[in-house]
Amino acid sequence: MKSDVHLYAVILAGGSGTRFWPLSRHLYPKQLLRIIGDETLIQQTLRRVLRCVPAEQVIISTTPAQADSIRHQLGEWKDALQDSFVIEPEGRNTAPAIGLVAAELLLRDPMAVMLVLPADHVVQGDRRFQSAVSFGVQLAHQGQLVTFGIPPLRPETGYGYIQPEQKIRLGRKGGLTGYPVARFVEKPDAKTAMRYLKSGEYYWNSGIFVWQASAILEEINRHQPELGAALKPIGQALRSGSSERLARLYHKLAPVSIDHGVMERSDRAAVIPVEFLWSDVGNWSSLEEVAPRDKAGNVVSGKVVDLGSRDSILYADRRLVATIGLSGMVVVDTPDATLVCPKDRSQDVKAIVEVLKKQGAPEHLEHRTVFRPWGSYTVLEEGKGYKVKRVSVNPGGRLSLQLHHQRSEHWVVIAGMARVTCGRRVFDINVGQSTGIPKNTRHRLENPGSEQLHIIEVQNGPYLGEDDIVRFQDDYGRGVKR
Amino acid sequence: MKSDVHLYAVILAGGSGTRFWPLSRHLYPKQLLRIIGDETLIQQTLRRVLRCVPAEQVIISTTPAQADSIRHQLGEWKDALQDSFVIEPEGRNTAPAIGLVAAELLLRDPMAVMLVLPADHVVQGDRRFQSAVSFGVQLAHQGQLVTFGIPPLRPETGYGYIQPEQKIRLGRKGGLTGYPVARFVEKPDAKTAMRYLKSGEYYWNSGIFVWQASAILEEINRHQPELGAALKPIGQALRSGSSERLARLYHKLAPVSIDHGVMERSDRAAVIPVEFLWSDVGNWSSLEEVAPRDKAGNVVSGKVVDLGSRDSILYADRRLVATIGLSGMVVVDTPDATLVCPKDRSQDVKAIVEVLKKQGAPEHLEHRTVFRPWGSYTVLEEGKGYKVKRVSVNPGGRLSLQLHHQRSEHWVVIAGMARVTCGRRVFDINVGQSTGIPKNTRHRLENPGSEQLHIIEVQNGPYLGEDDIVRFQDDYGRGVKR
Repeated sequence: MKSDVHLYAVILAGGSGTRFWPLSRHLYPKQLLRIIGDETLIQQTLRRVLRCVPAEQVIISTTPAQADSIRHQLGEWKDALQDSFVIEPEGRNTAPAIGLVAAELLLRDPMAVMLVLPADHVVQGDRRFQSAVSFGVQLAHQGQLVTFGIPPLRPETGYGYIQPEQKIRLGRKGGLTGYPVARFVEKPDAKTAMRYLKSGEYYWNSGIFVWQASAILEEINRHQPELGAALKPIGQALRSGSSERLARLYHKLAPVSIDHGVMERSDRAAVIPVEFLWSDVGNWSSLEEVAPRDKAGNVVSGKVVDLGSRDSILYADRRLVATIGLSGMVVVDTPDATLVCPKDRSQDVKAIVEVLKKQGAPEHLEHRTVFRPWGSYTVLEEGKGYKVKRVSVNPGGRLSLQLHHQRSEHWVVIAGMARVTCGRRVFDINVGQSTGIPKNTRHRLENPGSEQLHIIEVQNGPYLGEDDIVRFQDDYGRGVKR
Repeated sequence: MKSDVHLYAVILAGGSGTRFWPLSRHLYPKQLLRIIGDETLIQQTLRRVLRCVPAEQVIISTTPAQADSIRHQLGEWKDALQDSFVIEPEGRNTAPAIGLVAAELLLRDPMAVMLVLPADHVVQGDRRFQSAVSFGVQLAHQGQLVTFGIPPLRPETGYGYIQPEQKIRLGRKGGLTGYPVARFVEKPDAKTAMRYLKSGEYYWNSGIFVWQASAILEEINRHQPELGAALKPIGQALRSGSSERLARLYHKLAPVSIDHGVMERSDRAAVIPVEFLWSDVGNWSSLEEVAPRDKAGNVVSGKVVDLGSRDSILYADRRLVATIGLSGMVVVDTPDATLVCPKDRSQDVKAIVEVLKKQGAPEHLEHRTVFRPWGSYTVLEEGKGYKVKRVSVNPGGRLSLQLHHQRSEHWVVIAGMARVTCGRRVFDINVGQSTGIPKNTRHRLENPGSEQLHIIEVQNGPYLGEDDIVRFQDDYGRGVKR
């Protein structure tokens, strides 16, 4: 596709969903998961939009909690996308996120057209997607706020619907037709959904949009004047790097969705019924809409040994999952938690997460593996008075210069080379070498090499919480003691 | 109960079952599991027989593969039972195991009476059990081969049945009556089992026996003359400590069960219908016969978060298992494998184990935690070029003096004190201290203290198999290079 020079792809990657628990966590949402295929959903989304726009015209809108994990997944695009992030201080739903990006884009390009899409949807059919975007851009240049409508496959009650005003055609291109939106409908009940399906007059709202930055800002100003007014000072705070001011201003915003707050109220909304396969993969059972199934109808991933199950979703990771004679079940195994439920109860995973949250169980919040700006760590085991971690440091990365009051640490290098600061000494250790860090000693771990550094860290002490840390210097601007 | 001075309890603990996979493994069978209550099945069996006989009259018949794991579970009885083991070179079914113990007992006490019972059955009702044993001993002194018959609770097709000759009473005591056995029946089909249940004339064969050592040997000589003839040289080899000769002789024995090979053919078999609750807990679904259930009929153990399941068996360990709306399901989670199946498919767990065996998957054979004479180790993580273990050494225990050609090791003490031999040096390290063992260096880990020693071991090298070991000295007689 010959891309429109004014087209920018805006990936909404601020979600914190737990509907794919235990694979997703509060701090590790669906967009980061390899749910279908070899790439994560955000990687697939990136690949999709990079067929429509060059890397320097991609914007990733996210929150501080997600940014490290997303950067970790950029892979080949890491350098090209390093300046692509717009980091909201916190998630305030889609209208503020989109408004902020639109205002920033307008400063850069008064003719900017935005393709807005969630990071965690599945789309199959790249050509059709590109054709739809191309046509969407054409309508957007006419001032329309374009949404893509998906022909419904079943009487789904979990999606919003769009009814086009079919008497009026806004344009045609390559078999696609654009219409004004007659109305948006919130998630319908089962009976209504069935009526919509049978009528052939309704489409699922994909949550993918194309519009001019100027047009969406006009509509935000009209229908969400408070948000509109706040965008200017927020943009100033963002550009000046005043993170405290930005956070304060952002926190005041009402968390409104772009659909409910703007699109439903606008008279410029248009819809293009499209033909690519789309799913918001809202829970485990929706996986079977998009993932390949075996002869018995199972979606199987990872180290699964099965005898005679059918129509089930069997998701293992490195551990072994054995299943016998299941029917219509979901089994999901992760290093620290396993879920078993019938497919038709998948939506109740949320309730499990709520229970865990109330119990203060760590399994709702994060995985055993936690991403940091310098790399990641995985807790291998915790017990009374000790903790064992595998720590992975990116080439050129280094942890903060730090100190622990309550624990000593031992580091054994298992891959790569480590540069160690311990007190006043700085030295390198290689694979099979080790060093000990006494408590109350300033220390730092650094990867000066060009390959990934992996160490095993054994902590000893009466208290081993992550908050026993005094930082003296940090490359990533994290709280430093002065 | 006032114990008969000639009574010996013989616990058959040589089984290698996998019907409770993934909790049981080929090298970690059911007897070692904490399936119900706070103690493992063999611990419960020990506690039960120690109400009938003193510790020095307990014999544990097992195989080398099981002995370390059993010793590890002896706890308070460790010293009292250290000489109680009769170790068969390999499992050859119950007739050889019983014959061997009977022959040995006869040398020690010509009047010996044996209470023979499997290590992995559940019995509830200690008093009734003791009364039954007491009466059994009385009949055994009359020359009977006594078995206990359990009134059937359902038309079970997985058990053998016993029909008493009810016209003849061999004796009565405390409400119990002994009869000659009219016949033993192998596992019946469903229709026959139902007829047995309705007739009231049949009992389940509990596999628990009482007889004189001399009597069972006479019957072995009569009905299994080859086995009878072999017992004398086998006993000699056992007492002389000639393990190679013992293994050679033992390997020649036909693997025959005492039921099929002797009891069914003997005219001295008697049965006492008993009233204690008994189960051989043959698979996961049988657990609900003996374990407490919650209001919804679930048997729940460990870290389980459930929403609305019923009639299910939910067994977690240290990891979290979340279940929603299950009905009649078995979910069993262990550190390296998870099983999910409907209760009525529990018996097919065997087939899963067969698949794993064919695949060469380690999960059929042993757990992440492996027991050794000196303690145990648990593999925390394995990856390319490294392995991380937690090693636990009993007070006074020490590993062999050994050397690895392909790996170096680092040890960090997390509890207790370690005495380390490394090359020519011997030194102690405490909690929070560490040491490194280069490859090709003689070394030894020892616990000189009175509390358990725990270390984290990080291995580095191109090959990390357990067979890269040269032993120079070993306290436990394991293969030493000379």
